Amino acid sequence: MNERHPRAVVLLSGGLDSTTTLAIAQAQGFCCFALSFDYGQRHASELSAGTAIAKAMSVAEHRVLRIGLDDLGGSALTDVASPLPKPPSKGIPATYVPARNTIFLAYALAYAEVLQAHDIFIGVNAIDYSGYPDCRPEFITAFEHMANLATKSSAEDRSCYHISTPLIQLTKAEIIQCGARLGVDYSITVSCYNADQIGRACGRCDACYYRAKGFRQAGMPDPTRYQPGVSVSDTSPSPEEKS
Amino acid sequence: MNERHPRAVVLLSGGLDSTTTLAIAQAQGFCCFALSFDYGQRHASELSAGTAIAKAMSVAEHRVLRIGLDDLGGSALTDVASPLPKPPSKGIPATYVPARNTIFLAYALAYAEVLQAHDIFIGVNAIDYSGYPDCRPEFITAFEHMANLATKSSAEDRSCYHISTPLIQLTKAEIIQCGARLGVDYSITVSCYNADQIGRACGRCDACYYRAKGFRQAGMPDPTRYQPGVSVSDTSPSPEEKS
Repeated sequence: MNERHPRAVVLLSGGLDSTTTLAIAQAQGFCCFALSFDYGQRHASELSAGTAIAKAMSVAEHRVLRIGLDDLGGSALTDVASPLPKPPSKGIPATYVPARNTIFLAYALAYAEVLQAHDIFIGVNAIDYSGYPDCRPEFITAFEHMANLATKSSAEDRSCYHISTPLIQLTKAEIIQCGARLGVDYSITVSCYNADQIGRACGRCDACYYRAKGFRQAGMPDPTRYQPGVSVSDTSPSPEEKS
Repeated sequence: MNERHPRAVVLLSGGLDSTTTLAIAQAQGFCCFALSFDYGQRHASELSAGTAIAKAMSVAEHRVLRIGLDDLGGSALTDVASPLPKPPSKGIPATYVPARNTIFLAYALAYAEVLQAHDIFIGVNAIDYSGYPDCRPEFITAFEHMANLATKSSAEDRSCYHISTPLIQLTKAEIIQCGARLGVDYSITVSCYNADQIGRACGRCDACYYRAKGFRQAGMPDPTRYQPGVSVSDTSPSPEEKS
């Protein structure tokens, strides 16, 4: 992947979804520039995972921006005093971070303009994690429309930017199967909200629940590294899986 | 102005436009929460001005977020190695910062959601500074539409957020006349891109040019503090003013 390929900005959290998204963008022929954010999230080890993934997948560049989301508060994901929800949570979970994807995509847009890239990839998913409003297709469409009015580049071309969401209608199992076909090494990805410093999962949070369920439903071995005393069997199947 | 009034987030740069916007929001009866950004701008003294203005105008709260815009580059406003344009600049000036207002408004949206505020004020202006694409009415409309799909609050009410742009169709002279009627003390505002550490203006940049022209056309004394050896007469009138 080199400079003869079109450039794309890929939002890379270090989790399963964004890593699969990066693999898809590369498979589509894009020269990928990965963007991660240090926003005071509890699970800071996902940032180390992002760096390892960016290296393993040979991205053109990986930037980690320190942004002050935790200064604003309003989420269990950035406030260690707030309890995390027990899986499976109902409605919009406490881990929702106000306007997070709006802020992430706004930075991706700035980065794309600086790079003269026209494509932005984000691994949002409206199926297995439908609680977050900023993961829905209508939000992405509205952001893309706004982006095409927001920049110097779009002042010259109003269809300059395209936001790609290759996972948006896939189940977690389908995402894992897709990534596996593309050779993604899921053992280096971190999804857990309570991961320890070396990225080992707690097996008990929402994110662990959906991830483990995804591997089970995909019929694939789960390469997730768990903390001592926890195993994949601790991530309890949901009632509908049991029945 | 207290908690019985509806809350609004006001983007406050410390310049003439945002200060007037804050005065208008207060005059409309809002309890105002001011938001400023330290994004590596050359003219960091506008941040001190923002703090002084927030205090003088008794806002409910003033937050300054450190955001990594300068890490992305692409602007003469955050890159001291890039030359500033000579006034009056043509087209989109080099001081354009990629996706700046998209990023600022995204943070304002997050802050509004945390505060349970529904109103966001931004002092964009499409007349005297028409070069910036993210100051145009169609951009603001598109952002508002996106915002009403982006958040937990808007999942319940799709007309939850309103972006107010009270200056958007005013000339700089009209903005100054409006602010003067509302009692704004323009001597503590800083517009200059090259202001010194105590906020004194250079008299030669784009921002000084439009500000000085605004006071002349408003027929009002210019209270701007200039650096030693510079006076308001150094901000040269444009050819059409001379003719």
